[in-house]
Amino acid sequence: MASNQKIYLSGPEVFLPDAPAIGQRKKFLCEEFGFVGLYPLDHDLADMPGEAEDQKIFAANVATMREADAGIFNLTPFRGVNADPGVAFELGFFAALGKPVFAYTNDSAPLFDRVAAAHGVHGAPDGEFCDAHGLLIENFGNADNLMLDGAVKSQRRRVIRPDMTLPGCGDLTGFIACLRQAKVHFGF
Amino acid sequence: MASNQKIYLSGPEVFLPDAPAIGQRKKFLCEEFGFVGLYPLDHDLADMPGEAEDQKIFAANVATMREADAGIFNLTPFRGVNADPGVAFELGFFAALGKPVFAYTNDSAPLFDRVAAAHGVHGAPDGEFCDAHGLLIENFGNADNLMLDGAVKSQRRRVIRPDMTLPGCGDLTGFIACLRQAKVHFGF
Repeated sequence: MASNQKIYLSGPEVFLPDAPAIGQRKKFLCEEFGFVGLYPLDHDLADMPGEAEDQKIFAANVATMREADAGIFNLTPFRGVNADPGVAFELGFFAALGKPVFAYTNDSAPLFDRVAAAHGVHGAPDGEFCDAHGLLIENFGNADNLMLDGAVKSQRRRVIRPDMTLPGCGDLTGFIACLRQAKVHFGF
Repeated sequence: MASNQKIYLSGPEVFLPDAPAIGQRKKFLCEEFGFVGLYPLDHDLADMPGEAEDQKIFAANVATMREADAGIFNLTPFRGVNADPGVAFELGFFAALGKPVFAYTNDSAPLFDRVAAAHGVHGAPDGEFCDAHGLLIENFGNADNLMLDGAVKSQRRRVIRPDMTLPGCGDLTGFIACLRQAKVHFGF
């Protein structure tokens, strides 16, 4: 059974060399689950407002997010310990609109462990933990910043973290788990 | 003249050891410019929904963002080449609601230069640029991911990038410039 619900596909894979192929696979999987996948790279930028290419892409992404009924967010860390800020922006965009959000990461470690490994960790006098630069490290067991996990948790779900031996942002195991959640959410 | 417009104060300084003092300074500056500053760390979490502390903080931040008339976002890179994902999330939240957004960064270099310095750069066959891992590097001259700069540009402003000799996320030069922009925006 198909729902024709549209799902926005947000993730750092748009920066991978095989970005179009990953988008194809994601859209195919959406169809398998009865959804329509909306992939950022599929825009026709010709009709978009703005003169510069980045402003056209921004306008197209915003229009697609407003069109979508839900979003699936790939929070796999990108160039560091955190999710891609573009993905974080888009998750916030959906949260503000009250649309259903589903998220996964291909790095199953909590943010705390990643920061400790990359930036050091020591106890602070107040019982909190800081990195080597004295910056507080969130210690809630979350996949990323509490605003990102919080958007998912506030909808009574969790960020899906499949156990990967080789974390990379292109694997779709967590994406499929999100599609299952979406199917449950939309009740078909 | 005061406007009583409320400005949400988003930035990675909440993770600094002197976070409360920076919040005090930001709120004082807001008042100087005729605004009321809303700082995330000022929440009383007692009345917030959710059992866990992170969910209470999330709920409080969301409620405060909905209450605010505008937001000022500190996009200074945090633990890497990009803005803090919590700040990116919040910028997306405001963008979705169509509220005025003002942003600054204390690292005046474009994202492209930061990524090239930290992750390498080489030309790709299609004329684009990739880092050492083959990941595309955005090359629009923006301060960060195009969605972040795009939210500001779509409101006909730019991310403010004061020239700092020692970039650190606590300096308030850019913040003050954002307050000036906000004063112009609200017309008083």
